[in-house]
Amino acid sequence: MKIENYIRDIQGFPKKEILFKDITPLLNDAIARKEALSILVGSLNGQNIDKVVGAESRGFFFGILLAQELNAGFVPVRKPKKLPYEIISASYELEYGIDSLEMHTDAIKKGDRVLIHDDVLATGGTAKAVCELVEKLGGEIVQCNFLMELSFLNGREKIKEHPIFAAITY
Amino acid sequence: MKIENYIRDIQGFPKKEILFKDITPLLNDAIARKEALSILVGSLNGQNIDKVVGAESRGFFFGILLAQELNAGFVPVRKPKKLPYEIISASYELEYGIDSLEMHTDAIKKGDRVLIHDDVLATGGTAKAVCELVEKLGGEIVQCNFLMELSFLNGREKIKEHPIFAAITY
Repeated sequence: MKIENYIRDIQGFPKKEILFKDITPLLNDAIARKEALSILVGSLNGQNIDKVVGAESRGFFFGILLAQELNAGFVPVRKPKKLPYEIISASYELEYGIDSLEMHTDAIKKGDRVLIHDDVLATGGTAKAVCELVEKLGGEIVQCNFLMELSFLNGREKIKEHPIFAAITY
Repeated sequence: MKIENYIRDIQGFPKKEILFKDITPLLNDAIARKEALSILVGSLNGQNIDKVVGAESRGFFFGILLAQELNAGFVPVRKPKKLPYEIISASYELEYGIDSLEMHTDAIKKGDRVLIHDDVLATGGTAKAVCELVEKLGGEIVQCNFLMELSFLNGREKIKEHPIFAAITY
């Protein structure tokens, strides 16, 4: 079982020059999905996790599966104006301009041991913003955890103060 | 354990007149989340499910947990231009205007037994569009399954040809 075989290359999405890594075949196969989850969980070597934070929206998929497997709370980080309660926000740079991400203020308590998950580590902008949100609320980041890392974009440089794990590296 | 206690009322989100049902406290509590999942799974009485379809994006949370629990594939239904591969789409009415939802054409095979999940059954517009997508691909809808039903909006009328289950009814 190679989970790589369930990631589909789509040339030109969402922009002409991008080779997009489509995880929907992995989501759609129960056995491959469980194998991927088991690799992600295994990378923690049994460390205790209080909260798993997943970034909108492809980080929600394995984020909540990780939370379920680890008996942890799940915290969605969302695009602006999607979360209904009191929020904090963090900005990150896009190719042109700036965007931001939000988290509920009661999502993480001081001292919570936090696993951050997203589907892909690309430029690292999203991951860095999520780390900032977790740390603003006093959470301790145990690991930043990805299904895939696009290593040629060197995103890990932006979050190098934290342990990083990716199940697949391109 | 009453899962209702983990749903938070937010008055005025996203619009002044709306009482929003916030599920983030439920997601953030491992025990309550497992209880909710167990209620949703129990409603199926052991029926076999090949695919669970979840609607963007709050339907992703329990949608993929259901898929994991039922050993089924998970299929995300998304807003326009989010899915990278070949898609089919279905439109639904909003208060002002029209919106549409998309699904990958290879997500469901003819004869697949499908569970449709979303967090809330409100006017039924989203659920109806998701049913249309599943049926276009030849899937057999076993149940439309929701965490919550806002029964005063009478959304179940729009999907009355299918079995409907909601863990909480308001």
